[in-house]
Amino acid sequence: MLIVKKFGGTSVGSPERIMNVAIRCVEDYKKGNDVVVVLSAMGKSTDELIDLAHKVNPKPPKRELDMLMTTGEQVSVAMMAMAMDSLGVRAVSLNAFQVAMHTTSQYGSARLKRIDSERIRHELEDRKIVIVTGFQGVNKYDDYTTLGRGGSDTTAVALAAALHADSCEIYTDVDGVYTMDPRVVKTAKKLPEITYDEMLELASLGAGVLHNRSVEMAKKYGVPLVVRSSLNYSEGTVVKEDAKVERMLISGVALDKDADRVSVIGLKDRPGVAFRLFDVLAKAGINIDMILQSIGREGTKDISFTCSDGDMDDAIKAIETNKERLQYSAIESRPDVAKVSIVGAGMMTNPGVAAKMFEALYNEDININMISTSEIRVTVLVDLKDADRAANAVHEAFGLGD
Amino acid sequence: MLIVKKFGGTSVGSPERIMNVAIRCVEDYKKGNDVVVVLSAMGKSTDELIDLAHKVNPKPPKRELDMLMTTGEQVSVAMMAMAMDSLGVRAVSLNAFQVAMHTTSQYGSARLKRIDSERIRHELEDRKIVIVTGFQGVNKYDDYTTLGRGGSDTTAVALAAALHADSCEIYTDVDGVYTMDPRVVKTAKKLPEITYDEMLELASLGAGVLHNRSVEMAKKYGVPLVVRSSLNYSEGTVVKEDAKVERMLISGVALDKDADRVSVIGLKDRPGVAFRLFDVLAKAGINIDMILQSIGREGTKDISFTCSDGDMDDAIKAIETNKERLQYSAIESRPDVAKVSIVGAGMMTNPGVAAKMFEALYNEDININMISTSEIRVTVLVDLKDADRAANAVHEAFGLGD
Repeated sequence: MLIVKKFGGTSVGSPERIMNVAIRCVEDYKKGNDVVVVLSAMGKSTDELIDLAHKVNPKPPKRELDMLMTTGEQVSVAMMAMAMDSLGVRAVSLNAFQVAMHTTSQYGSARLKRIDSERIRHELEDRKIVIVTGFQGVNKYDDYTTLGRGGSDTTAVALAAALHADSCEIYTDVDGVYTMDPRVVKTAKKLPEITYDEMLELASLGAGVLHNRSVEMAKKYGVPLVVRSSLNYSEGTVVKEDAKVERMLISGVALDKDADRVSVIGLKDRPGVAFRLFDVLAKAGINIDMILQSIGREGTKDISFTCSDGDMDDAIKAIETNKERLQYSAIESRPDVAKVSIVGAGMMTNPGVAAKMFEALYNEDININMISTSEIRVTVLVDLKDADRAANAVHEAFGLGD
Repeated sequence: MLIVKKFGGTSVGSPERIMNVAIRCVEDYKKGNDVVVVLSAMGKSTDELIDLAHKVNPKPPKRELDMLMTTGEQVSVAMMAMAMDSLGVRAVSLNAFQVAMHTTSQYGSARLKRIDSERIRHELEDRKIVIVTGFQGVNKYDDYTTLGRGGSDTTAVALAAALHADSCEIYTDVDGVYTMDPRVVKTAKKLPEITYDEMLELASLGAGVLHNRSVEMAKKYGVPLVVRSSLNYSEGTVVKEDAKVERMLISGVALDKDADRVSVIGLKDRPGVAFRLFDVLAKAGINIDMILQSIGREGTKDISFTCSDGDMDDAIKAIETNKERLQYSAIESRPDVAKVSIVGAGMMTNPGVAAKMFEALYNEDININMISTSEIRVTVLVDLKDADRAANAVHEAFGLGD
């Protein structure tokens, strides 16, 4: 078996934890498996590096920020190789240049384009455990890029796909996928299995267990994912195409507090307005989430959208820079909002799911700012202060708790 | 003018110091010069990384140690580029892969083989300040290597040679080359100029200002070196072929406390013995310094040599592993020794210099363990406890003080 194992920053947050992860990987290796390990930076080191950067530049160039941050994973992988060596097992650490991990050019939020698997295969044939830096890549300018927060999951899945791995295990500080974040909703339950699509909706909505791009990629290449805890040996949640779950109406509730709303007021009500706005935002590298367009009135209309906290200022700047092209009267922004979503393949065949969610929020007197839906998801934007209460109310309404 | 400027770990030890260095480099850039900056890791970060490594492995594999340590310079260069950006100047940081810096394969003590100057030239033509990681390279296996302690000096000189720079400025925490370490001998004086050869003897003897390989390389390629302080604007010491100094008998005294002595006792007194011993040590990657061979007696002889503190254990291990091939009766080792040297082009034409040094040590009742000489240098090995006293006595005897 070829197993790709990914451990996040918490799992490698100290020399002791690195030793524990090393022991765990060596167990699988000694059973005769080929083992590839993908690591994030140790603990809070990425945040510490960003803090350090801000001490010399409040707005550091993204190219240099990536150059700085990629050192974090390199420290982790070298430490892990040393830990495995101390256990008497041959291991080799590789960074994005050495693998090589080719990405698009965009610093801070690059996408993986191609992974050369030659060196990794060579090292595996040499019976070494191969330890790869997550989160990072190299672009066509021969510069480091990063894949954005949570990008190590994507690295792991992409590697599993490139190497045709038998399994891709994602180790986190929770032991699987729950119906809702157990820190917010105490009665939340662990799901033994879940489909890629459900996981995708949960991930992109900030359930925080898996990065959305990693799930997309796992679905595309049919990589079997397992979400497990690095702290215990419990079974975890398997993510695959044909998950056999005792089908509930919805599988889980997701809460995302990392959301800002921006409204562009008084746009001309004519074709091409939305295209121009989102073209400007795309070129600025801003990931847009929900979009709401008002019905035109008196020749003008408003467009609202949500983006992550870190992108709001850039989004506003991009819009203001293009004021002449876009022609609008004002921009309004709200950083204090959160998204609450319900996800479940079951809702495709069950009408009234959205209504049930809205009722639960109405009963709690929670105001809905925006609504967005997909085939297996309903998302509402609420005030940040109402977020936890909303998540609990919805979780309760669908009987997800124990 | 194309100027290469190298700053050591102390000079970039904090965000504030990085800003100061950035300001200094930008001054030269704004005068119209092309500026290439070579940096060491911030402050004590290399030591901290080694400490971290030892927490998972008391004897980490050298390949992985290099993988770990090279992150230190990458942090420095990224921080410097950000600092320069905050001053409104375009800058780009490059690591050993990006330059690229080709070295021999030996981890921990690689030698630079070839530097590709294409990318640096391209960035300079684009009017950017180019900031390069010192100390590190990439070997034929596509792995990181390090050049050993002080290797950033070598990186700077090699870059200056490859780019045909007009000047290579080495910034340290002292403002030039002194007749002796001013921390040990209070009356030590700064030299305005010094020849490559004298600097070479001082450097290889642990004067601590410049790395010996960097001086060798500067001499070979005729790179004009300037040793200056990063803390003030004083003139520093120029190192060049035809330094015009008011020629004193000796230029300086060097003290090296990082020396261990190993003696191999009872070797067979026949041809090839020394060759086999030092072949074993060379293959183990150990740099040998002084060598002393006893006169043969009763068919056996002893060979003693000195090496740096970090290499003693490896040296003994290599000798023990090859006991059968080498045929000796015992190994003796002493870590508590130090080298005291006098250096000066003047001694070539002045007999009696060595005798004067020995007299000064005799007057202080300091025992000499080993003696080694070159055309412009005399070195003695003394007990570590006598080291400072020996250096002062010799400095005084040659009238080097104020």
